[in-house]
Amino acid sequence: MPELRKDPVIGRWVIIATERANRPDQFATVSEAGPAEKTCPFCEGSEPQTPPEIYSIRPKNTPRNSPGWELRVVPSIAPFLRIEGELERRGKGMYDLMNGIGAHEIVIETNQHIANMADLSEEQITNVFNCYIDRMNDLEKDLRFKYVMIFKNYGWVAGGGRVKHSRSQLIATPVNPKRVKEELVGARQYFDYHERCIFCDLIKQEIASKDRLILDSDGFIAVAPFAARFPFETWVLPKKHSCDFTALDNDSRKNLAHLMKVLLSKLKKGLNDPPYNYVLHTAPFRRQKLGYWKSIDSDYHWHIEIIPRLTRVAGFEWGTGFYICPLPPENAAKFLREVEV
Amino acid sequence: MPELRKDPVIGRWVIIATERANRPDQFATVSEAGPAEKTCPFCEGSEPQTPPEIYSIRPKNTPRNSPGWELRVVPSIAPFLRIEGELERRGKGMYDLMNGIGAHEIVIETNQHIANMADLSEEQITNVFNCYIDRMNDLEKDLRFKYVMIFKNYGWVAGGGRVKHSRSQLIATPVNPKRVKEELVGARQYFDYHERCIFCDLIKQEIASKDRLILDSDGFIAVAPFAARFPFETWVLPKKHSCDFTALDNDSRKNLAHLMKVLLSKLKKGLNDPPYNYVLHTAPFRRQKLGYWKSIDSDYHWHIEIIPRLTRVAGFEWGTGFYICPLPPENAAKFLREVEV
Repeated sequence: MPELRKDPVIGRWVIIATERANRPDQFATVSEAGPAEKTCPFCEGSEPQTPPEIYSIRPKNTPRNSPGWELRVVPSIAPFLRIEGELERRGKGMYDLMNGIGAHEIVIETNQHIANMADLSEEQITNVFNCYIDRMNDLEKDLRFKYVMIFKNYGWVAGGGRVKHSRSQLIATPVNPKRVKEELVGARQYFDYHERCIFCDLIKQEIASKDRLILDSDGFIAVAPFAARFPFETWVLPKKHSCDFTALDNDSRKNLAHLMKVLLSKLKKGLNDPPYNYVLHTAPFRRQKLGYWKSIDSDYHWHIEIIPRLTRVAGFEWGTGFYICPLPPENAAKFLREVEV
Repeated sequence: MPELRKDPVIGRWVIIATERANRPDQFATVSEAGPAEKTCPFCEGSEPQTPPEIYSIRPKNTPRNSPGWELRVVPSIAPFLRIEGELERRGKGMYDLMNGIGAHEIVIETNQHIANMADLSEEQITNVFNCYIDRMNDLEKDLRFKYVMIFKNYGWVAGGGRVKHSRSQLIATPVNPKRVKEELVGARQYFDYHERCIFCDLIKQEIASKDRLILDSDGFIAVAPFAARFPFETWVLPKKHSCDFTALDNDSRKNLAHLMKVLLSKLKKGLNDPPYNYVLHTAPFRRQKLGYWKSIDSDYHWHIEIIPRLTRVAGFEWGTGFYICPLPPENAAKFLREVEV
């Protein structure tokens, strides 16, 4: 019997097709390479091909926009939002709009031509998280912004484009993304009733049951969510309660880098180097003066959501918010636990 | 300057990339044919290849599951939900689930091997709508179900599979889809404040401004929504207020078929026969005895959402609920208005 399962945080029902007896390895990628690779503007030595860097990790004696760096952040050459200007919130009849003010930055995660974050060293991945935190702290100073979306598109099918060089993207916006709002509301409702964080409860249950647990290492777990939308959808959560990714201490950043390296290597080996997306879910900026999202510290819990792009999404999901997952998350978790890396 | 626009019903912000100066015809499909077509089980004469029909439009003197029909409905051969059984709502620790009870049916829209609904006659399209209504009325009698999702996947990229024969799908579920709930809540909030239907207001504004209007014919309009998520996203709405698609009278069904035929023909001609999805948004079942969604009659408004599949969705949209639309809906509407069919 297939199951209808409800996401405990945002209340979305999904169909889990338990009966189709799909083997996990059936979902391994049939590679869709996309068009030929372009010359890489992100490798060391190609600095003049990008806009001037906003941030870098590099030795003190090397000038900006020159070789010698380990990680660089540059503005997108095709930004979706503009950094200069006023928001000008306004109405147009019944509609609301504002100027497309925001930041759109590219985090070039390595100076070498490496495509998949799985193949970076733990030190390099730690650098990436250090960079996310530094950029978020910097962008928080701009009072026009409410949120920074950080995400990665790896592989052609996942929107990774024609250049196969590991990078993430960052979009700072004057609005909160809908999904984050839904999580904040759902987590608040749970907290109001139970006086506990819903994610902390979820972590305890997943560690106890082990059914959907993929990794449990220093301070972090990776789980296949109970109401997964996609085969091999994976959430990475810190065991210690925190709403704010930027509060992560140095040791924890290293531990997270270790878990991500192992997890992404398992995906790569087990599923034939699949395209994937990940998205960081963290609290919106909580500036004292705005009194904004006051109690979020106790009820929200940051996490990373990873979605391998193994199935074609049919499209009615966009119209209905209703998903059908062809592989039970328990089977996905078991498969990934057993991949040796 | 790009714009941030807010969907008035569900409050989702989107970036409209007004500045990239994309020409509408740049989005025309580069055909991705998918694997070779399979022998068609949906053509007249192939009735034994499908499960027995649940419903058909056929002359009275022809037996079921034999040739002579104009339209047939059959159960899916790979149903996501099972029709037999009890719901058994239950908990699993903090999680909620129930048995995957539901119906999953295929509406075969013509006995001829025609791929695109645009190429059906208006009479055939009217038959399709008649069928939707008859099936919804029948499924409403099953008290386990709350909602019937009706959608179409046309073309390989849109999940249309290997058989190029025009059909829609119907999934009856014991839960309401998340997106429909969000629309019900948003429409209710607007009604509570204004004592008017938000969709009726939207229709009036779109007809007055004409900026996003694609078609305005007997009783219906087709518009590019103000906060479109995708290029050429189109909503079809009845001008007369009604929350319930099944309440559509016979003349209105014909008028809707006419508008859909013109609209889908414009998409086909203007955008090189693109893959597309459509989804019917209508009120959940409102059974008197359940007192369910009591006042929905005045505040919700059924409509059809059509999404041509012209751009690769990068994936962070799934993680954030935040979309970037590379073409202003005003440009899309102007382009489609000018396509002659």
